Amino acid sequence: MILERFKVPAKDQVHVSEAALRRTVTQIFEKLGLSKEDAAEGADVLTMTDLRGVETHGVSNMLRQYVRDYKAGKLDPRPGWRVVRQSPGTAVIDAERRLGIMVGPKAMRLAIEKARAVGVGVVTVYNSGHFGAIGHYAMQAALQDMVGVCFTGAGLSVVPTFAAKPLLGTNPIALAAPAGREAPMLFDAATSAIAGNKIRLAIRVGSPLLPGWVTDKDGNPIMEEKPVFNRDEYHQAPLGGTREQGSHKGYGFALMAEVLSTVLAGALPTMLAPASGSKTHFAAYNIEAFTDLEQFKNTMDDMLKTLRTAQPVEGQERVLYPGLSEAEEVLHRRAEGIPLHKEVLQWFAECAKDLGVAPLESMS
Amino acid sequence: MILERFKVPAKDQVHVSEAALRRTVTQIFEKLGLSKEDAAEGADVLTMTDLRGVETHGVSNMLRQYVRDYKAGKLDPRPGWRVVRQSPGTAVIDAERRLGIMVGPKAMRLAIEKARAVGVGVVTVYNSGHFGAIGHYAMQAALQDMVGVCFTGAGLSVVPTFAAKPLLGTNPIALAAPAGREAPMLFDAATSAIAGNKIRLAIRVGSPLLPGWVTDKDGNPIMEEKPVFNRDEYHQAPLGGTREQGSHKGYGFALMAEVLSTVLAGALPTMLAPASGSKTHFAAYNIEAFTDLEQFKNTMDDMLKTLRTAQPVEGQERVLYPGLSEAEEVLHRRAEGIPLHKEVLQWFAECAKDLGVAPLESMS
Repeated sequence: MILERFKVPAKDQVHVSEAALRRTVTQIFEKLGLSKEDAAEGADVLTMTDLRGVETHGVSNMLRQYVRDYKAGKLDPRPGWRVVRQSPGTAVIDAERRLGIMVGPKAMRLAIEKARAVGVGVVTVYNSGHFGAIGHYAMQAALQDMVGVCFTGAGLSVVPTFAAKPLLGTNPIALAAPAGREAPMLFDAATSAIAGNKIRLAIRVGSPLLPGWVTDKDGNPIMEEKPVFNRDEYHQAPLGGTREQGSHKGYGFALMAEVLSTVLAGALPTMLAPASGSKTHFAAYNIEAFTDLEQFKNTMDDMLKTLRTAQPVEGQERVLYPGLSEAEEVLHRRAEGIPLHKEVLQWFAECAKDLGVAPLESMS
Repeated sequence: MILERFKVPAKDQVHVSEAALRRTVTQIFEKLGLSKEDAAEGADVLTMTDLRGVETHGVSNMLRQYVRDYKAGKLDPRPGWRVVRQSPGTAVIDAERRLGIMVGPKAMRLAIEKARAVGVGVVTVYNSGHFGAIGHYAMQAALQDMVGVCFTGAGLSVVPTFAAKPLLGTNPIALAAPAGREAPMLFDAATSAIAGNKIRLAIRVGSPLLPGWVTDKDGNPIMEEKPVFNRDEYHQAPLGGTREQGSHKGYGFALMAEVLSTVLAGALPTMLAPASGSKTHFAAYNIEAFTDLEQFKNTMDDMLKTLRTAQPVEGQERVLYPGLSEAEEVLHRRAEGIPLHKEVLQWFAECAKDLGVAPLESMS
């Protein structure tokens, strides 16, 4: 559910098909030294994220950074990881500088396997590159008739309530749960007032930042609408914005994600180790260990339909639930193509040329 | 970390000792038909909550309602519960209308037991009375060197983003994690802009409600400061307040709590079954299944100390972390007594007389 202000303006859009995007991204990853399997898996995470309309975490914002980091040797393209500790319901993984979008799908599969055995499975991964949109991994569990939950700790951009400097990352939290006739619930939100990538996106689409989203360099929440400005001129506020509006809760959720992803994995938070990479907690709950699967899905259907068909407040057309617009966007974009900013297409052209890959086909 | 505006005014305070409060509350519960063990356990939840300064969920706001519900036969005082389904890492419990503060401690003990066996334990409880401050159960796990997490689904007071009517409860989320030298982390927050009980407290202490906390009866967020008014004149807003400020995230967290506590337990959310009671998800993560306990505590210490000693923003004295002021309040109130509103003492006097219990001693 992306705000209108963040969408790519129609005049700047170029449409590409799902298949073309998958193909080109997979080829780029293969050229960077990744195995066929890892390349396809990473391309799947990015393509699905763009199909869901989560443009902040799709190819536009993220791929160029991944390519840069592989080229600079900051990311290790080789397959594998190291299992540090394991129990029937848990595992801790050292990603050894693999990219999160390659490691994440495997980590959630391991959590699902453990949940099949003992009802619930939790896998924590540290020392990793960026994980992309973690809702994707939660959805993996939902597609296996489980509830999937993820927490990520990464970055140093969010100012705790009453502090002057950033000490936490945007630390997102995600949950996905299957339904029967309704689209599955898919919740995936940064615990900051807005996602970090939204700033980059706002700059690209020329959109102003709203009150309560950011603080100045001394930690004071900025409470008026600001035109696009340099990323280095502000810090991010926790969800809530100010103490009175509940920023201590956004701050608490960020810390919750830090404990469950990072400290529980035996790793150090970014505030203590700036170069320590990303950490994610992957949890799968086997629904059948708790209740009948059909009953679960029926209740999800009834609940999600009640929300979807609820009377909207004056001035709004409808009530959404988390995952509804994403599911609609997947249908729409599978049919009409994925709208990318023409500037992104330009980057693709240069990148493909540089790596010796066929150019990304656009639809028109 | 309660806002100044919610504190009991000094002129209205009467102090009682921890021991006196425990004794009287235990006796009241025993007179209502509870076993010695359950009475003491419920009194412990309430007394610890008041010691932590979480007055919204201590004796002042909650006990009179519990007494009323036992007397009306809405709550069952007998010991016990029904295990509906179980696996090595999970259990589902039908509380059969027991009060949550009696059932909660047992549910978290069961989750801890399962976490000792397979690394992580999850227990969901439905068909229960009120659970009080769920941070208490998370702390039970922290005291056993585990990370404790709780999610509650209950009530029908929060308006989803863009909706006209309330469809969700204030659905709190809590996490506690042990540290070494630092006070443990204890996060416990409603996913609404403010906790439901804060309204009752605001009325008692005569404090106005701030912008973004509530909506009018048609779901429009009220964006100016409002004097205390009737509880029936408003609905609650999700954390964030408005869509632009991130209310869709507060709404998503509320739904996350609903899925993990209610739907996963095979129960119905309040929006579908108004009289279905409270549901809570109790999770314990055995730290030693993930990493070395000492390493975990050292990292918690370093992280919490970094937050506690961070430079504050201009106009603030210090930065807090969730659980710090609660730990300080416990020390302070153990020494100086628990400040109750004189009106609460009056209720205690009537209740004790009615049940034939010795009156609650004040510290004079």
